[in-house]
Amino acid sequence: MKLHHVIEAQQFDVPTLLQLFAVAERMEQVAARGGITDYQNRIMATLFYEPSTRTRFSFETAMHRLGGHVISTENAAEFSSVAKGETLEDTIRILNGYADVIVIRHKEVGSAKRAAAVSRVPVINAGDGAGQHPTQALLDLYTIRKEIGAIEGLRIAMVGDLAQGRTVRSLAYLLSKFADVRLYFVAPPLLKMKEDILEHLRERHVWWTEETALDKVLPEVDVVYQTRVQKERFGDRIADYEECRGVYIINQASLRLMKEKAIIMHPLPRLEEITMEVDADPRAAYFRQAQNGLYVRMALLTMVLG
Amino acid sequence: MKLHHVIEAQQFDVPTLLQLFAVAERMEQVAARGGITDYQNRIMATLFYEPSTRTRFSFETAMHRLGGHVISTENAAEFSSVAKGETLEDTIRILNGYADVIVIRHKEVGSAKRAAAVSRVPVINAGDGAGQHPTQALLDLYTIRKEIGAIEGLRIAMVGDLAQGRTVRSLAYLLSKFADVRLYFVAPPLLKMKEDILEHLRERHVWWTEETALDKVLPEVDVVYQTRVQKERFGDRIADYEECRGVYIINQASLRLMKEKAIIMHPLPRLEEITMEVDADPRAAYFRQAQNGLYVRMALLTMVLG
Amino acid sequence: MKLHHVIEAQQFDVPTLLQLFAVAERMEQVAARGGITDYQNRIMATLFYEPSTRTRFSFETAMHRLGGHVISTENAAEFSSVAKGETLEDTIRILNGYADVIVIRHKEVGSAKRAAAVSRVPVINAGDGAGQHPTQALLDLYTIRKEIGAIEGLRIAMVGDLAQGRTVRSLAYLLSKFADVRLYFVAPPLLKMKEDILEHLRERHVWWTEETALDKVLPEVDVVYQTRVQKERFGDRIADYEECRGVYIINQASLRLMKEKAIIMHPLPRLEEITMEVDADPRAAYFRQAQNGLYVRMALLTMVLG
Repeated sequence: MKLHHVIEAQQFDVPTLLQLFAVAERMEQVAARGGITDYQNRIMATLFYEPSTRTRFSFETAMHRLGGHVISTENAAEFSSVAKGETLEDTIRILNGYADVIVIRHKEVGSAKRAAAVSRVPVINAGDGAGQHPTQALLDLYTIRKEIGAIEGLRIAMVGDLAQGRTVRSLAYLLSKFADVRLYFVAPPLLKMKEDILEHLRERHVWWTEETALDKVLPEVDVVYQTRVQKERFGDRIADYEECRGVYIINQASLRLMKEKAIIMHPLPRLEEITMEVDADPRAAYFRQAQNGLYVRMALLTMVLG
Repeated sequence: MKLHHVIEAQQFDVPTLLQLFAVAERMEQVAARGGITDYQNRIMATLFYEPSTRTRFSFETAMHRLGGHVISTENAAEFSSVAKGETLEDTIRILNGYADVIVIRHKEVGSAKRAAAVSRVPVINAGDGAGQHPTQALLDLYTIRKEIGAIEGLRIAMVGDLAQGRTVRSLAYLLSKFADVRLYFVAPPLLKMKEDILEHLRERHVWWTEETALDKVLPEVDVVYQTRVQKERFGDRIADYEECRGVYIINQASLRLMKEKAIIMHPLPRLEEITMEVDADPRAAYFRQAQNGLYVRMALLTMVLG
Repeated sequence: MKLHHVIEAQQFDVPTLLQLFAVAERMEQVAARGGITDYQNRIMATLFYEPSTRTRFSFETAMHRLGGHVISTENAAEFSSVAKGETLEDTIRILNGYADVIVIRHKEVGSAKRAAAVSRVPVINAGDGAGQHPTQALLDLYTIRKEIGAIEGLRIAMVGDLAQGRTVRSLAYLLSKFADVRLYFVAPPLLKMKEDILEHLRERHVWWTEETALDKVLPEVDVVYQTRVQKERFGDRIADYEECRGVYIINQASLRLMKEKAIIMHPLPRLEEITMEVDADPRAAYFRQAQNGLYVRMALLTMVLG
């Protein structure tokens, strides 16, 4: 099975997901022995208009572990001919002459799709503003399957900023493809999951509920997916931000309420929403989750590069 | 034939140009199969004091396709010891201990020459302010030869900002070395080709003319070399900029006036001076031209690295 | 002998130093033939929160000459999730999933130690503010041994900003481990060597003296270690800065006073404290010293990567 562009979580059906996960498992072994050199004739361009050192490092490590080369920009918006008014389409057409795969991160929703529309080489969306961040959703799903054993029958709490967090939105969408999943949305009133996702879940007959008391939900679920209340999305509505942050904190007390085999996930960076004392608990899966990003991105690169 | 430093277009005589183009042709084949590993023991430093993501990517791709390594800075002026007052000469001397070839881009005219004067390893000029950008001129010439078949007998229109555009200045200089070339300079009065180039052409007995009506020239020429009116070079003379931009636009109507085998070139980025509708026409050569930059830079690297 | 983290000069005992220098000598030969590919399965992350193009280039060249891969950030503080409030510890934990060795530069004293405390993979301190810059101290010591033949019996003048220059502080510390070393501290009153180092030297029974007349010291010593008076460390105390800079200048006249076999060192960048005319003298060792940084860093990388 060969992928071309990776633009949004919705493009993945269950067989493709399972295929991706099988490749990612093999990539864990590849990475464990330091990598391979099979892709030494391939070049990946990381075209980041919006900086994200971690996501960039994850993709670049993936390419290096495959033996490939990387050309990289941390801040394309400021530095490139974009400043002179070049369209994204022209930039992509030019990069087509250099790179075998383009990883793009951009502030504008839909930019990865625009890039893919003119690109001969595969384009991978590494986040387009408030839009999609599909590789994050894929590594989240991979982590759930690896840690819990199966996605079918999952009970998951999504906590925090469900309104603006693209991570939980994409993950909810992907989970709706699997049987007998139950979603518990735990959010302050200002940050509730938006109607488009809820409507999608209704259509797919997926069980979901909205809760405000985290402690009530914790004993029920296999996965607590905690998110950061993103200050930068509130603009100058400081009071709203202050009201929302700190409502839901995962700490030692939370651990006592959780199932023994449950896990805590977080897309990172985390601030105070998971206290440091939680890190030592084996159920703290968020750093393992970040590492899974490497395997999933290695798998995606091999699938788009063929 | 071995090159050492690549500082300005004028250093290339016709035999060296033909040699370079023969190597660049071989590099097309090398790049088509993904590259070689012959230069895996060589390191290129891209020392960019002025950002230019595209030029940097082109050089770095060239080095990677040869199997070499790259150390890279996007914005040396802001980040390095330059901020502490280090001279360019000291920076180059130190880099001589690390890299096998240095690609430099700098705001100041003559900086590449200064760098070369103290460098044991080859220095390649990737643009020194309003001065030179020799690899652009070389890839332009390579593109003309490849697309048109020969440089001798060429009829070329240079359009737009001929006063400040270093690209057209260097290209006019290089073309003067070939027999029976005719140059049509099409520019607004404020942006006419400067006297030093015109004088050089007179000395070499090269045929040239100045025109203001682009449509009159289009049916005559094999190459239309369009350029961007560079806002950044006007400073606060906004009215002058507004008067000059948009005077000469290549569009569908232009295509109807042009010869069937003619081509349109542009150093990119392009704004409105070539409309998007032109892109689909086979005579639109500007993206192929950008790609040729890769082959010419691969060829230059092999020639300076030996 | 295997190293793990490289955090501060004090961690190195004499046997480890000698082992490191033996490896660095072999690395000179490795670098002379362009490098090796033994480390092609290893990835180094350069995590620079404070920009230093030269130090970054030196480490990255070292890794490339060993055949390894590099993921790199020039300005982590501005670009990464740090801006969103992520702790250094979390960043390091995540990078542990990607890289085999982490080279960190940070504004805060103690940050490298904090990084090492949570890191499974080796951490190398590339400068933590006014704290340590151990690889600089190691390359300084390596240079002295290589140029002078031995460290025992050395007479060295340390000149300039001894109060704030971490380089001379670390070097004085390392030199105290060797027999019969004599240290001449030559500094303006505002920039004298601080009491903690003097006290340490007293405890170790190391001979030292404080002088204000450089010319009196020059005929005595084997090494003149000149430093820059760092404007950035004076803040708004411009008058103090102006008083201190330019007090001690190494020029042609200084060369006439120096021993024939003595050398001049400088951590670079240098401003006016060593005049350009000195560069051509064989005793000007500062560019060779910078190059030795490559060999010492290659040696450190092989020792921490095993």
